[in-house]
Amino acid sequence: MRARLDVLTRVAFDTRIGSPMPATDRPMNFNAGPAALPRAVLERCRDELLDFDGSGLSVMEHSHRGASYERAHRQTTARLRSLIDIPDGSGAQGYDVLYVQGGASHQFAMVPLNLLPAGSTAGYVVTGAWGERAVAEAKALAATGGGDVRVVANTVPSKGDDALRRLPRPGEARSSVGDTYVHLTTNETIDGVQFATAPGASMPDFGPAPVVADMSSDIAWRRVDVRQFGLAYAGAQKNLGPSGVTVVIIRRDLVEAGRADIPTILQYRTFAKHDSLYNTPPTFAIYLMGLVLEWIEGLGGLDVIEARNRAKAAAIYDAIDASPAFYRCPVEVGSRSLMNVTFRLPTPEAETRFLAEASAQGMTGLAGHRSVGGIRASLYNAVEPAWAQALASLMRDHAMRHG
Amino acid sequence: MRARLDVLTRVAFDTRIGSPMPATDRPMNFNAGPAALPRAVLERCRDELLDFDGSGLSVMEHSHRGASYERAHRQTTARLRSLIDIPDGSGAQGYDVLYVQGGASHQFAMVPLNLLPAGSTAGYVVTGAWGERAVAEAKALAATGGGDVRVVANTVPSKGDDALRRLPRPGEARSSVGDTYVHLTTNETIDGVQFATAPGASMPDFGPAPVVADMSSDIAWRRVDVRQFGLAYAGAQKNLGPSGVTVVIIRRDLVEAGRADIPTILQYRTFAKHDSLYNTPPTFAIYLMGLVLEWIEGLGGLDVIEARNRAKAAAIYDAIDASPAFYRCPVEVGSRSLMNVTFRLPTPEAETRFLAEASAQGMTGLAGHRSVGGIRASLYNAVEPAWAQALASLMRDHAMRHG
Repeated sequence: MRARLDVLTRVAFDTRIGSPMPATDRPMNFNAGPAALPRAVLERCRDELLDFDGSGLSVMEHSHRGASYERAHRQTTARLRSLIDIPDGSGAQGYDVLYVQGGASHQFAMVPLNLLPAGSTAGYVVTGAWGERAVAEAKALAATGGGDVRVVANTVPSKGDDALRRLPRPGEARSSVGDTYVHLTTNETIDGVQFATAPGASMPDFGPAPVVADMSSDIAWRRVDVRQFGLAYAGAQKNLGPSGVTVVIIRRDLVEAGRADIPTILQYRTFAKHDSLYNTPPTFAIYLMGLVLEWIEGLGGLDVIEARNRAKAAAIYDAIDASPAFYRCPVEVGSRSLMNVTFRLPTPEAETRFLAEASAQGMTGLAGHRSVGGIRASLYNAVEPAWAQALASLMRDHAMRHG
Repeated sequence: MRARLDVLTRVAFDTRIGSPMPATDRPMNFNAGPAALPRAVLERCRDELLDFDGSGLSVMEHSHRGASYERAHRQTTARLRSLIDIPDGSGAQGYDVLYVQGGASHQFAMVPLNLLPAGSTAGYVVTGAWGERAVAEAKALAATGGGDVRVVANTVPSKGDDALRRLPRPGEARSSVGDTYVHLTTNETIDGVQFATAPGASMPDFGPAPVVADMSSDIAWRRVDVRQFGLAYAGAQKNLGPSGVTVVIIRRDLVEAGRADIPTILQYRTFAKHDSLYNTPPTFAIYLMGLVLEWIEGLGGLDVIEARNRAKAAAIYDAIDASPAFYRCPVEVGSRSLMNVTFRLPTPEAETRFLAEASAQGMTGLAGHRSVGGIRASLYNAVEPAWAQALASLMRDHAMRHG
């Protein structure tokens, strides 16, 4: 399976064959982000690292104002627009695609700075640790005069409470009339809670306000209708590329509505007006994201990658549910993330033993976030189906031996 | 000369020999930033792109919380501290080294956000286009209640004025008692104006306030006493690495003095407290900067790189001054930048012809900034002495044929 995929992606890329390292030497990488990148992308990057676009220079050595880099920059945007189907109309009918630095944590500040002027209100839906960080940053800003922030729903169990993690119940999380936006985290990387994972599902109804979504670990793993969002942002380092660049997809009327009395570099309109070339962008990260998007196209696009991703998550959840006395997923069934599968074993010692066995079989990145412990398998786009199958096999075997 | 340097840097790196592309195929890259990177660094990066630290994974695929990346992160900082000699004491006796995203333009906002609370004042010294951008951002912030900003000196000729670009005269640029800082741009990349270029020179006296310096195109090309600065920041993409990371060297009492009522991600203390690992850093850019620093160490450190850099600039300025009727440097002799040598030919047509000849000889990146035109040779650390010699030879030859 793995060998076949390698051949497929190599063909799509038309790269030179002949890596100095056999494919079997690569660990199975389940890191939560920065995460696995497609082998074919890394090989292509390596092969052209000293000679980008036939220039004899590395892509890192090109001016961001030069034709070679600008072509890569525009191509990355064109691929994002085409893959995700991002509308290009004006006002509320169109979206800008921006490249900002600083990660989701920077967006936690940039969103309210732009969209929460004094006298306005916004709602925050909290389903995990990242939503908590987002609302904390917005509240701190509100305290110094940047409008008013309200938590419209928080489903995170309090410390010591053993309740399952979950999404809001229908109707539990609704913005108020007049809110300038409602913010949520579509997939909680640490908690393993994800919205709208059923095939073809839309986001629930959050009321009248535009939805601002942290999609850092949820972007481009399947087809999604971006018209559900006023603004969606995503650090690239999970499904799209390396760390160092954040994709912001923002409705053009919200760009215009943004405050103009904040620093230039913190306004979305600065990035929109200059095609994210107001100042030097993180050129290498944008270039590499373009290669990952090309790789997704080569696989067959979002429909193919979605089927691949669903199969990976199903394999792990099936292994959990096959041994309910041994493995326990701390998330309600309808709220389970397909990107970050979290599970516990009976004791911390059993978890340590499991991680050691996984490591011995060449699996890495499976320890849960240091704040919650347990096991977490992140299954982003570049995680190969064979790795998920291998993990599921280990889980079944391990439960037989130790359960 | 060029071949000898290649051998030297290869030995320092202990990299495998055997690039698929002969050294002579590489263009001579005079880009202003993103700029040339050392060939040995690119080769090392290529060779370990799929296998960092013996892990079988790319450096881009490692968690920023993992041992391998954290070691690279700390090593980059240790190399910066040792090369630049950054004091590690407490309070006003020590400096933190931070990695922030967003480039110098982000610092134009972050500096006054942190250090210019309501009721305080700051002075700005403007010697070129980047200083003008910095003060504009600070003034916009001051207009919404962030303190008061004063231009203490502006030496930029007004549009249409043919006066030479220059540094402030002695005593022309002094902060006022009570200013929280005085900001300046130690090297103006577009204008070709640089402070304190004489061997061993200190910065002029700017009065009592701590000096905040944009050193984006001025860092680590020679030995400098950082104790002259309260805060120095530098986008890496000129002397240190690829775009996507900004080095901030900040006195610890200024970290503490920074406002705490601004967003977490915009406070210097957030980066200082978490060793720039509060959120996911641009791991690849920090790793690559570490390789460039290692390369500088391998060459012999800042003293050796300084001699190399002085020789490059001298070669070009000598060629300009040897044909004063043909080449004209728009900068006063004592203000001339050793990093960005700017010059004009008698007519725009003559400049176009010169650029075409340079291009035919394998030189790239020599067109002046689109806002000013003319010729600009950027001579950052990775620009090889042989390239500067080749450019100087072309200039002399070209002047003979066309002067």
